[in-house]
This record gives sequence, C-alpha cells and structure tokens, in this order.
Amino acid sequence: MPATPALSTPSAGARFEQTTIERRELGERDVAIDVKFCGICHSDIHQVRDEWGGSIFPMVPGHEIAGVVTAVGAAVSAFAPGDRVGVGCMVDSCEECEYCRAGEEQFCTKRAVWTYNGRDYDGNVTYGGYSRELVVKDRFVARIPDALDLQDAAPLLCAGITTYVPLKHWRVGEGTNVAVIGMGGLGHVAVQIAAAMGAEVTVLSQSLSKQDDGLRFGAKHYYATAERETFKELRSSFDFILNTVSANLDVNAYLSLLRVDGTMVDVGAPSQPDSIHAFMLIAGRRSLAGSSIGGMTDTQEMLDFCARHGVKPQIELIGADEVDGAYDRVVNSDVRYRFVIDAATIGAATG
Amino acid sequence: MPATPALSTPSAGARFEQTTIERRELGERDVAIDVKFCGICHSDIHQVRDEWGGSIFPMVPGHEIAGVVTAVGAAVSAFAPGDRVGVGCMVDSCEECEYCRAGEEQFCTKRAVWTYNGRDYDGNVTYGGYSRELVVKDRFVARIPDALDLQDAAPLLCAGITTYVPLKHWRVGEGTNVAVIGMGGLGHVAVQIAAAMGAEVTVLSQSLSKQDDGLRFGAKHYYATAERETFKELRSSFDFILNTVSANLDVNAYLSLLRVDGTMVDVGAPSQPDSIHAFMLIAGRRSLAGSSIGGMTDTQEMLDFCARHGVKPQIELIGADEVDGAYDRVVNSDVRYRFVIDAATIGAATG
Repeated sequence: MPATPALSTPSAGARFEQTTIERRELGERDVAIDVKFCGICHSDIHQVRDEWGGSIFPMVPGHEIAGVVTAVGAAVSAFAPGDRVGVGCMVDSCEECEYCRAGEEQFCTKRAVWTYNGRDYDGNVTYGGYSRELVVKDRFVARIPDALDLQDAAPLLCAGITTYVPLKHWRVGEGTNVAVIGMGGLGHVAVQIAAAMGAEVTVLSQSLSKQDDGLRFGAKHYYATAERETFKELRSSFDFILNTVSANLDVNAYLSLLRVDGTMVDVGAPSQPDSIHAFMLIAGRRSLAGSSIGGMTDTQEMLDFCARHGVKPQIELIGADEVDGAYDRVVNSDVRYRFVIDAATIGAATG
Repeated sequence: MPATPALSTPSAGARFEQTTIERRELGERDVAIDVKFCGICHSDIHQVRDEWGGSIFPMVPGHEIAGVVTAVGAAVSAFAPGDRVGVGCMVDSCEECEYCRAGEEQFCTKRAVWTYNGRDYDGNVTYGGYSRELVVKDRFVARIPDALDLQDAAPLLCAGITTYVPLKHWRVGEGTNVAVIGMGGLGHVAVQIAAAMGAEVTVLSQSLSKQDDGLRFGAKHYYATAERETFKELRSSFDFILNTVSANLDVNAYLSLLRVDGTMVDVGAPSQPDSIHAFMLIAGRRSLAGSSIGGMTDTQEMLDFCARHGVKPQIELIGADEVDGAYDRVVNSDVRYRFVIDAATIGAATG
C-alpha cells in the first residue's frame, strides 16, 4: 500500500510527530489526492485531546482538506488528474438509505464514516488531512471552483458547510435579521455567508476587539456581550441566531434576543449541558436547534456560493512544526481566523 | 356597574369562596356573556397557588369559557344576543402592532391582557370565567359552532388552541409521525386534533392505564415511558413531539426519539429549567421549541376544525362547591380528562 508522510499524535494531548501512514490502493471508485492544505478545526483539538471521549490513537486529524487529484479509479467519471478538489468531514456512507439518497449523507442510517478518528466499514481506522496524500471515494470529493484559492477553500470544507447549512435550512435571506455569536473560525465565515445571502447581520462577540473585521466581513452591527446593556438593547431583535461558540453560554439570555418564531441554532458543541427555561421558548414560540456539517450536494453548493460571492476565510498559513502551538492559540482565541497547514511541510523535515 | 356571582380565592392556596364581583358597563365594542361553562386548566391551579409568582388576589380564575351573548355594544356587528360564544386566555390587546395585525394577539408588543390574574390597560384587575357573567371586547370573542356542545367547547378555548397551534405551525398532517407526551387535559385533545389532521399518532404516557382511551381518541400506538425499552424501540421515530406535561422530564431522552429535522414542542411549562445536551440537537438537526395559546383567527379556526372533525374533550361536569376537590384531583392526574364547572351553580348556594 502507498505510504505517505503525516502528522500524528500517539496519545491524548501528546505533541504531534512526523510519521508515515499507509493509504489504501486505489479502488475503482477512489480518487487519489495530493493534499495541498488542511485547516485546523476546533474539533481537531477536542479529539486530539480526547475531550469528547472515545478517541482512537495514533490519530491523524484534519477534515478541511484541499488538494489536486493525482489519479482516479476505473469507475470514476466526475474527476480527473489535475482537478482541484476538497474533502470534508466524511469519506463514506451507505449511499442507499433515505438520507444518502437525499444527499444528506451525514445522517446515513448505517453511519457516515468520518474522515479521521473513525473507522471505515471494514473496521480500519481513518486518517485525515494532516498528511500529504489521501484516497477517498468519489462521492465524498467536492470540486473547488477556480475563483477560490486552495488554501482559502480548505477551511470551507468544515467551517463553511457547518455554517452554510443552517443558514440555508432556516431560510436566511433578504429581510432576515441574523445574529452570529462568536467571531472565530466558524463565526467569521458565517457572517460573510449570511451577508451574502442578503440578511442583516449582527455579530455578538465578547468584546469589540474584532469589530473592524466583523464589519468588513459584512456585518451591519457589532455588540459586546460582556456589556449587560447589549441584552437589553437587542431584546426580541433577531429572526435567527447562529451560535458558533463551543463554550457553554447563558442560552436563556440569548433566547431572549429572538423575535417571535425566531430560531437559535447551535453549531458549536459545548461539553456541558445547557440549562434552558422552557418559558423562554414558550413565550415567543421560539426554537433552539442544532446543526452539524451537511451533505455532499450542499457542500458543492456552498463552495460554488462562496466562489460566486467572494466569501473566503481569513487564514494564517503555518508549517507542520507549528501545529502544537497553533492548537494552544486556537484554544486562547488567538487566531484570525483559521490556521491552515501547508501540507508540503509535512514530511519535509524527515524527508 | 353590574354585579355577578363568582368563585374567588382570597389568598394563595386558600379555598374558593362564593362572592360577587362587578363587571364593567357595556362599552361600544363590548359583548356581555351569560357564562354557561368554564373549564379548569392546570394553569388555574398554578396561579391560584401562586406557583409562578406575582399572582393578584382575590383571584377569579377561568379562561376556558363558553356561554351565550346577552347584549352587545353599539359598535358590535359580529355578535348578537343569543349567539353561542367562547372566550379564552386573552381579553384585550393593542390591535395595532405587527402581531395584532397578523392575528397573533398573544404576541402583542404592548402586551395582551390576560382573562384573569392580569390587569387591563386601565390598571383594573381582570376576573375570569368562574363567574356567571362576563363582559369582553368583541375581537376576543369566538363563535362556537352548532356541532359543539357548550360544555365540550369550553376546554377547547385553552386546551384546544394550545395544542392546535403548534400542530398547525409545524405542519403536522398526512405522513407525519407524531408523539404526544402526556394523556391529560391537553394531551387527550392533542391526540384527537393530530389524528384529525391525518398524522400517525403515538401516545407516550407514564403507564398504559389510559391506553384504551388513547386509541379511541385516534392514537395508533401507545407506550409507557416508565419502561426503558420504550426509548430504545422508538429511537429516531418521530417527526414531531408535543410535550403537554408540565412536570420536568428527561428532555434529552425524548429528543433522542426525534428523526432528523424533527421538532419537540413544549406547551406545558415546567417550573424548573431543563438540562439540554446540545449534542442531542446537533446530531440530527433537531429542534426544541415552545408554544402557548394562539391568536383569535386560529382560535376560531380551531373551533371550526374541532366541530368539523368531531374533536371534543372528555369532561367531568362539576358544581361550584367541588372546585377545591377538583384541583387536588387534577394535581394527582385523577381526572378523565377535564373538569368543567357548571356556571349555573355559581351563586346558587348564596342566591
């Protein structure tokens, strides 16, 4: 089997090591990809540090992958060598259940196979995009439009689809008053997508330190949630609130900012349960919902949408030896706004 | 001002006393109603016992009111003496805000005036339907179709509208798999309405003691939630769950019964906050929502719907001297399924 350089952690919270992993031989539906860039998602950190439990080590994280096709299996017609492509959080599903048929593979009733820290249907551990090469079934490969640089496209494969789907699903658009909680990796993309959809966007961030960026990304308003006045002033203001923060918040306070029939959607996954007063939902027929990633149809649609509307993450490009430090900075919210690993640096030190 | 016999509590948790209250002189938009029947809602008990705080005493409860018009003001064209009518939870609103204009007076931005334990816009305390006569602004009077007996119609003014609105709002109908949690005053009406809308209805009740009734009301399936197997067997089964129980439940366990994109709506208002795992919402793009009563357009629509489909509460008719005992039985879930006070008995003992 073909070997490829990768960044791997041997145990929970350990530092990354340069190593070599094996990719499977090209099957007839497979696409071999020369990985060019891979984004660092906060969920990589949760899993590397085993904060959600059940992590499989050694682990090669990475599900915000952009690269170029190097070879395709005999049955692959949609891709050819040289194509610019992306891979997100999934690499397989049953393709037969009602959700797969509907293009919502993330809900596959057999189970979606996650790009890393998962097991494929044969029981093999999956390894992600912190590596030089990847072999993926064609259905789970998206085409990256020419207007998007590969390094900008990489974070969209998770941060983009995770925010695009709820904004689309709950019909955000012209006339919708939207708040985005958090101006991090997900939030700064969500602001751009919601604005591009025609919504009036407000950022709710702990402080005003990123206000200039927020307005540049398309927000009309920017409020500091550390100020008590914010919650008074914005009471019953929003049709839709997207919560991109993975820390536990005072959800009831945010629910009070929703208008009648408004919806707040969590895409960050706080580790502790939230305490919700049913009355906050009952009073204005409000909804609290959750959403995670999206299917491959929506993934392609999202990439095309971002290319068409000039939506792109603001990234900080790093080398393989900077990943451990980057993790600490993500946890400290010290990144504007997404780290992307230059995959060419993986294996470079040992090669 | 006209005096009328009423049942009143002097302080939190005190027994009811036969008394006399004054109703306002008929204004030009007012409808005077000879109250025939008034249902006992669990929220009457919460307020009489001041379990939500802020109760105003003496209190005359009652917001499930059915009666006959005795007189109308000069500007009233929709009603005439002799008409069979109902009054629910609201007796006034601004009639000008966006919600009033949309027929959703319960969300009035000035504030809806509640039928009892509230204050009208002049600051006067409102007294409800545990009385012989009522004077109400025409907008807040609904017409009771001939096919509905007045005593059956009374509980629909709260239990009916509270369950009809979420079922309608979340588009329950043919092909929808609906669960109703709780087979009490609200639940037994919800089962009938959801079945009449064409949904496949499952009752989730603590035990199977009311199973025969549930199936007779139109449920296809009936499960005991005290059985652990129920939650395994029904995992990811329902498009919509209506929670009519006002006690705190293990909400996460019920959320696990929702299919992808499913919604669970609380209409009972538990006194303590619920502990919600965001992951339960995120995993299947599920929603947890709340709903309370409905506007006057929906109230009329609901009454017409119930008349057309033969939906009617199963009631136990009681006299004025039985109300205290009925409260205890409601709290002990010992009523099938709604107590209705025969208003003719109010004042009869003192008369």
